[in-house]
Amino acid sequence: LVIKTDMLVDKTDVPRGMTYRQAARKAVAMCVSDFASKGVKPDSFLVSIGLPRDSTGGQVRELALGFKDASNEWGVKLVGGDTGEADDLVIDCVMVGFAKRVVWRSGAKPGDLVVTTGYFGYPPSGLRILMEGAKATELFGAKAAASVLRPSPNLAAGLALAKYLSSSMDSSDGLAICLHDIADASGVGISLDALPVKEDVRAFARTNSLSLERLVLGGGEEYLIVGTLEEESFRKASRAARVAGGELIRIGRVNGKKGRVELVENGRSEQVDRIGWTHLS
Amino acid sequence: LVIKTDMLVDKTDVPRGMTYRQAARKAVAMCVSDFASKGVKPDSFLVSIGLPRDSTGGQVRELALGFKDASNEWGVKLVGGDTGEADDLVIDCVMVGFAKRVVWRSGAKPGDLVVTTGYFGYPPSGLRILMEGAKATELFGAKAAASVLRPSPNLAAGLALAKYLSSSMDSSDGLAICLHDIADASGVGISLDALPVKEDVRAFARTNSLSLERLVLGGGEEYLIVGTLEEESFRKASRAARVAGGELIRIGRVNGKKGRVELVENGRSEQVDRIGWTHLS
Repeated sequence: LVIKTDMLVDKTDVPRGMTYRQAARKAVAMCVSDFASKGVKPDSFLVSIGLPRDSTGGQVRELALGFKDASNEWGVKLVGGDTGEADDLVIDCVMVGFAKRVVWRSGAKPGDLVVTTGYFGYPPSGLRILMEGAKATELFGAKAAASVLRPSPNLAAGLALAKYLSSSMDSSDGLAICLHDIADASGVGISLDALPVKEDVRAFARTNSLSLERLVLGGGEEYLIVGTLEEESFRKASRAARVAGGELIRIGRVNGKKGRVELVENGRSEQVDRIGWTHLS
Repeated sequence: LVIKTDMLVDKTDVPRGMTYRQAARKAVAMCVSDFASKGVKPDSFLVSIGLPRDSTGGQVRELALGFKDASNEWGVKLVGGDTGEADDLVIDCVMVGFAKRVVWRSGAKPGDLVVTTGYFGYPPSGLRILMEGAKATELFGAKAAASVLRPSPNLAAGLALAKYLSSSMDSSDGLAICLHDIADASGVGISLDALPVKEDVRAFARTNSLSLERLVLGGGEEYLIVGTLEEESFRKASRAARVAGGELIRIGRVNGKKGRVELVENGRSEQVDRIGWTHLS
């Protein structure tokens, strides 16, 4: 039995421009993302909802539609929950699944490759566009905003990859925190030889004078999987990810320098700090 | 697999005078009460916590102590959870257990006895004392306040009773709602021939000019079990409850008048409305 709970709170998790329907779907996506990264097929979910007193019937219907979207999208059944009154919209999603094996954070071994299931930087760019009016082309603005409003963990890819991964976690707190957590839990170090970033995010960072490293490493809300695997498994794993509609990107290698995460570019090594999303900081 | 989630919100579920430690314990008690009424032994629980930004380290430690109290008291393990920021203190407790059989609301049959595992009215009296300064003797005040601040579902009694009950639920929304839910789900009627109330609650109602019926039927937060069973099981069930440190009180009988709940006193029959605790009303 695998069970996981994740609480979405309006104030911190629902950016401007996100509808109640999208917020409800996101609450479920947050859990799906964790199941995907652990290679566990979710079976069903429950939701505890705290509603502000002035909520309308329309908003409650929006929430229901969002749960239905999620249910259809990831094949999980909504089997129960609780409703009550709260100052803020609060949705606690509880997800349940069954598994013979789970991929932990602690299995990374020196020599393993470090991989991700996609490129980083879109959600933090989208948040800056939605919340702070950062400048972006129409095309990039739409892509970045969609990554915030409709986070889409690739569950199928996660399930397909599980058997190849020596360690993994989802990157919802950001890439840097993710790499540090895996390094700490596995008692290893990680050396990145490439930031998983595409030219459009680089251009967005340049245009808005933002630190590209901060955008890619410290963003959060990414919902991609970060993991490690033996080098000889990479080709098969990569094919499995593609078959599941995803991709697998090689970004670095595990080494023996306990707890250290570094970025090596042009022969220069730079320490990667544990930056990213932490609550109540 | 039995799984249940119940959300405690500061504003609606934490009365004045309740400490964070008691609030944390109560969040778990709310789930334990439901498991007790269904005859399912809980195995473990998770908590999702939303904390106001100005929470202190002391308050967080208080919460941890409350979860530990609950864990020790009912023999359930805390196995995980989530923390984040919210306007209000929010604790969503998720409880997990395993069962071959669950007692539903829908099994009541005409002729069955209606029973409860205790006397009603203490928590609503306690709330009036804590929140509104209602008048009470020192002894009654202490007893009623304790029933609010330290709700104590009798899990052992619930587990012992399960095999005798044809239907049951916990009375956390109040006795009247409970009886209506069982009547509706079972397609039967219920006739009460006695209110489950003791002289001290009667006296409190008199002193404060409160409706005794409203106090006993519409109170909420009671955490007792209301159920039905065949008359010939009553003696054995009653003994099982006593062995588990509880009691079983006979308050009425199931009949064929679909969906109707009535109180018959001194030969007069009076309809019992669906009064009690509903959120957002």
